[in-house]
Amino acid sequence: MQHILILGGDGYLGWPTAMYFSQRGYKVTVVDNYFRRNACTELDVGMLYPVPTLQDRAKIWHERTGLEIKVVIGDLTDPEVMRGLFNGRVSYNWAIDSEFSGIPDTVVHYAEQPSAPYSLIDYRYANITVQNNLLITNNLVWALRDFSRDTHVIHIGTMGEYGTPNIDIEEGWIDIEHKGRRDRFLFPRQASSLYHTTKIMDTDLFWFGVRMWDLKVTDLMQGPVYGIETDESEILEQRSEVRKQRSEIRDQRSEIRDQRSEIRDQRSEIRDQRSEIRDQLEDRRHLRTIFNYDEIFGTIVNRFIVQAVVGYPLTVYGKGGQTRGYLNIKDTLQCVHMSEKTPAKSGELRIFNQIMESFTANELAEKT
Amino acid sequence: MQHILILGGDGYLGWPTAMYFSQRGYKVTVVDNYFRRNACTELDVGMLYPVPTLQDRAKIWHERTGLEIKVVIGDLTDPEVMRGLFNGRVSYNWAIDSEFSGIPDTVVHYAEQPSAPYSLIDYRYANITVQNNLLITNNLVWALRDFSRDTHVIHIGTMGEYGTPNIDIEEGWIDIEHKGRRDRFLFPRQASSLYHTTKIMDTDLFWFGVRMWDLKVTDLMQGPVYGIETDESEILEQRSEVRKQRSEIRDQRSEIRDQRSEIRDQRSEIRDQRSEIRDQLEDRRHLRTIFNYDEIFGTIVNRFIVQAVVGYPLTVYGKGGQTRGYLNIKDTLQCVHMSEKTPAKSGELRIFNQIMESFTANELAEKT
Repeated sequence: MQHILILGGDGYLGWPTAMYFSQRGYKVTVVDNYFRRNACTELDVGMLYPVPTLQDRAKIWHERTGLEIKVVIGDLTDPEVMRGLFNGRVSYNWAIDSEFSGIPDTVVHYAEQPSAPYSLIDYRYANITVQNNLLITNNLVWALRDFSRDTHVIHIGTMGEYGTPNIDIEEGWIDIEHKGRRDRFLFPRQASSLYHTTKIMDTDLFWFGVRMWDLKVTDLMQGPVYGIETDESEILEQRSEVRKQRSEIRDQRSEIRDQRSEIRDQRSEIRDQRSEIRDQLEDRRHLRTIFNYDEIFGTIVNRFIVQAVVGYPLTVYGKGGQTRGYLNIKDTLQCVHMSEKTPAKSGELRIFNQIMESFTANELAEKT
Repeated sequence: MQHILILGGDGYLGWPTAMYFSQRGYKVTVVDNYFRRNACTELDVGMLYPVPTLQDRAKIWHERTGLEIKVVIGDLTDPEVMRGLFNGRVSYNWAIDSEFSGIPDTVVHYAEQPSAPYSLIDYRYANITVQNNLLITNNLVWALRDFSRDTHVIHIGTMGEYGTPNIDIEEGWIDIEHKGRRDRFLFPRQASSLYHTTKIMDTDLFWFGVRMWDLKVTDLMQGPVYGIETDESEILEQRSEVRKQRSEIRDQRSEIRDQRSEIRDQRSEIRDQRSEIRDQLEDRRHLRTIFNYDEIFGTIVNRFIVQAVVGYPLTVYGKGGQTRGYLNIKDTLQCVHMSEKTPAKSGELRIFNQIMESFTANELAEKT
C-alpha cells in the first residue's frame, strides 16, 4: 500500500488531494498549521463558506467512506516537526490507528504561503512568506537527505516563475550554446511577485538537493487553478440537497440580476444578500475545499465567479492584458496523480508545465 | 559627508571595512549580532587570537584616531531592527553622538552566515543558514523599498555560485539566443554548498527588488579572501611590538620545522606550542580582524598559513584539484570602495567577478 504525505493538507489543493488518493486506496497523511485560515482571520477576508477543521474533515471522511486520513497539526518551518514525519516521532492529532504510518513513498509539497498579493502587502507579510516557504522546503530537503532519498517529491511551481522573457518558454530546462560549448541549465526564472520569487528559490534548494544527494523531485508548473468540486467531494455530498441549494442560488442570481442597477447604488444590500447566500451554502459538515474569493487568497477565476453571482463588478487589475494559463482543480489532481504513478528518477529534477487554457484577464472577464 | 552602513560589521570583512571608510572621512555605522562569535563558541572552534567586542573596537578606534564608528548590536532577521537603521528608531549600543546618523548613502551587506561547511553540518545549521541569510536580505530589500530607493547596496557574492558549467563563466549576465529570438539573463547559477545556494537566492531577491522598485545593487563575486592586516589595523598597531612578536614567531617556526618529524608523533606538544604562539599574539586591545583557522570558518589560505606556522600537515579535502580564485583582504576593501564611489544606477543589478589569482588546492598547499 503506497503511503502519500501531503504537506499543507488543509489548503485549496491539499484536502481534495487527500480525498483523491484515499479514495484510490493509498495510505494518506496530511499536515497543516492552519496558516491560511489564520491569515484569513488576521486580514479579515472571509471564505465563501465555513470549512470544518482538518480533524473534523478526516472524521466526516471516515464516517462516510470507512477510510482513514491521518492528521497532523504542526508548523513545518520547525525542522523537528518535519523530521517527525520520517523518523516516527510524530504524534497524530487525529487517526484511527495512532501507530506511525512509516516513511512516505511520495510527498506532495503544498505547504506554502500561496498568495502573490499577500507577499506584497508590506514588509511583515513579505518576511512571513520568505520564512514559511523557504524554511519548509529546506527542512523537507534535509529530511529526505537524512531518512529517505528514494521518496519522490511533487512540488507545485508556477508558470509565473518564468516571467515574460523575449524567448520561447521551455519546460523547465534550456540548452545554451555559448562560445562554441554547450550545457543544459534550468530555464532562466524572474518573477513579478515575491511569492513567485520564493518558488524560484524553492527550485534553487531542490536543484541543490537533487545534485548533492540524488533526491527525486517533480515540479508541476501551473497557472491559477479554479473550481470547487472534485469527484470525491461531489460523490459524498447529499446530492439532492446540493442540487436544491444550487437551484435556489440560481433563482436568487436571476433576481439579483434584475435588481442590478439598483443594487449598484446599494452595496450594503448586496452585503446582506451575500451573507444570505453564504448561510444557504453553510453546511457545516461538508468536504468541499477551502474557497477564497477575496483579493488576497482568491485567484482570478474563483473571484470572477463569485463576483458574477452576486452582481458585483469584476475586478481586473491594471489593463487586464496579462495572459495566463488556467487549470481546473480536477486537472491538477490528475497531474499530481500521474506524477505520483511514474516518479522522477534518483538525481532527477523533473519539470512539467501544466496549462489547459490561456486567456488574458479581460477575455476571462468577458467569459464570466 | 557620505554615510556608509555596514551590516555584519563584526566579521572578517566587516570591521576592516568600517575602519577603511572611517579613515577616509565617511560617517560609518556597523551592525552585528555576534552570530560568528557565538557560532564559534557553540561549535568550540577557537579564533587565532582574542578579538575585542565591537563596542570596544569602536572605543579603541576613537581613542587612537578621534573618529567615530557608531555600533548597533541587533539581529537583522527581525525586520524592525533593519528598519530602525532607516527610519531613525535605532538606538546605538556605542556612539559619541547618539543622534540618528540619517539614511545611509551606501549599505555594505556582509550580514550572512559565511561558511559552506557550517551550512552542511546538519539540518539545524542548514536551517539557521537559510533563515539568517534570506530573511536579512529580504528585510534589507523592503527597507530600501520603503525608505530609500536611492541607497546603493554592495553585496558580496561568490564565484562558487556559478558552479562548474561546461560553458565560459561570464560576469553575472549572459545573452541567450533561442529559436531566433534573444534576451539577456542572469548567468545560470548552481552551487555545491547550501551556503553558496543562499547567495544565489539572495540574487533572486535583489533582482526582484531591482526590477520592481528600481533599487541599486552591486554584487561582488569573490573567491576565498585571505590575510589579516589592512592599512588601518597596521598603522595603528604599535609596529615595533608587532615586529618583535613576528620575528619571535619566525624563530619558533624554524625551530618547529626542525622538530617536525618528531612533532608528528607528539601532537599534544604541538598543541602546547600553539597556545604559546597564541599567548604571544594576544594583545587584547588591537584592531585586527576576526581570524579563524578551523575547518568551519577558516577559509583555505588562512587555514594553510596557520597550519604551516605550527607545523601541522596541511588539510586538503578530496583530491585538491578544485581551482578557485583567491583575493587578498586589502583587494576586497578596494573593490568595495570602487563600487561605493561609482554606484549602480537605479534599477541596475551590477555584477563584478573579483579574482586576483587562481590556484588548485594542491598548488596552494605547495606554495604554503
